[in-house]
Amino acid sequence: MGFWKSLFSNSDTVAGSRGGRGSAIAKDPRSSDPRANDTRIVFSTEREIDLYELEELCDAVGWARRPLRKVRKALQHSFLVVSMWEQRGVRRRLIGFARATSDHAFNATIWDVVVHPSYQSQGLGKALMQYTIKKLRSEDISNITLFADPHVVDFYRRLGFILDPEGIKGMFWYPD
Amino acid sequence: MGFWKSLFSNSDTVAGSRGGRGSAIAKDPRSSDPRANDTRIVFSTEREIDLYELEELCDAVGWARRPLRKVRKALQHSFLVVSMWEQRGVRRRLIGFARATSDHAFNATIWDVVVHPSYQSQGLGKALMQYTIKKLRSEDISNITLFADPHVVDFYRRLGFILDPEGIKGMFWYPD
Ligand SMILES: CC(C)(COP(=O)(O)OP(=O)(O)OC[C@H]1O[C@@H](n2cnc3c(N)ncnc32)[C@H](O)[C@@H]1OP(=O)(O)O)[C@@H](O)C(=O)NCCC(=O)NCCS
Ligand SMILES: CC(C)(COP(=O)(O)OP(=O)(O)OC[C@H]1O[C@@H](n2cnc3c(N)ncnc32)[C@H](O)[C@@H]1OP(=O)(O)O)[C@@H](O)C(=O)NCCC(=O)NCCS
Repeated sequence: MGFWKSLFSNSDTVAGSRGGRGSAIAKDPRSSDPRANDTRIVFSTEREIDLYELEELCDAVGWARRPLRKVRKALQHSFLVVSMWEQRGVRRRLIGFARATSDHAFNATIWDVVVHPSYQSQGLGKALMQYTIKKLRSEDISNITLFADPHVVDFYRRLGFILDPEGIKGMFWYPD
Repeated sequence: MGFWKSLFSNSDTVAGSRGGRGSAIAKDPRSSDPRANDTRIVFSTEREIDLYELEELCDAVGWARRPLRKVRKALQHSFLVVSMWEQRGVRRRLIGFARATSDHAFNATIWDVVVHPSYQSQGLGKALMQYTIKKLRSEDISNITLFADPHVVDFYRRLGFILDPEGIKGMFWYPD
């Protein structure tokens, strides 16, 4: 129900991207739904996501589990929460996620970008990021930042992200 | 008035750090107040800062001006706003500033760290950052991040910030 609300009030169907209508799904070995041609990739900015479904997605890429209480708080206080769904007829599955913190004025920082392994390498990560950037830009955020794991620096570079522009360096502080 | 509120409800006086009580002030050539011995450095997390005073501080280090409307919005939506004041008797002056965005759960990103040139190189930037880190830690934020201009990487390194830990890279996206 939360989902339908999101689908109609807060979502967009991706069109024209690689891995859009059908293509991501035709490859899915679990596809036995006669209505498979109905399959669409849908984006949503609704933040009321089933946290167990999100945990499953993060598990699938091997991320460490995080307390759901804290995940809920983080989603509530993110500026933007983007989820990507495979929609077949009335069924839907969470296949991608990203979120951003922001000061609502100058800058945003994107965190937790993930595409389910069964749906990777089909252009969906790119579509997810392009959707996220478009949403941030529509809020007049001009400085979009992130911290990239070494193996995905090139993924972000292809999307137009610049590494250490003018020597600006990402730094982290951890408790002792 | 807003200031007094902040001073008593939301502030701390720095004690024991280099550049704390007196030392930062004794050097200030404009010091002619007979009550100069009253001088203290005070930190506040009150976000109702005089935007003109903040603009003056940022001007003093040569930062590009930003629309005050957007600055106001950014302060409202920052997770933490830290200001550092020189307090002499009943007079006070804004001499330092920092703020952080956050998801209120896992991570925070520090922006706009500045100390007025007349007060630099006396340990006040360090005290400002230590205060900021302490506040973020008291909110249970474990992942504190920032993007450092090349000339201040060492300033942050001395404070315990790590450059590109495990190869994680800061990246920026700008509009075309
Ligand atoms: C990173 C991730 C989101 C990419 O999603 P994806 O759907 O596989 O990516 P796409 O298929 O849209 O790829 C888009 C482009 O980036 C390239 N690309 C994808 N993954 C890449 C990688 N790891 N390294 C370099 N390039 C990569 C693709 O070749 C493609 O290039 P092209 O546009 O020139 O054809 C996905 O692999 C993932 O979830 N990984 C695990 C979680 C993770 O590491 N997240 C990032 C944390 S910082
Ligand atoms: C960067 C800044 C906040 C430092 O404030 P400060 O009050 O001068 O710093 P401190 O006196 O507390 O210095 C703390 C330590 O960092 C060192 N340090 C200070 N500035 C430094 C710099 N630019 N590069 C390397 N080390 C520096 C000091 O030597 C001192 O070292 P120590 O603890 O070993 O004695 C201040 O210079 C400033 O406002 N600069 C202009 C704005 C700016 O560039 N902000 C950062 C944007 S990312």
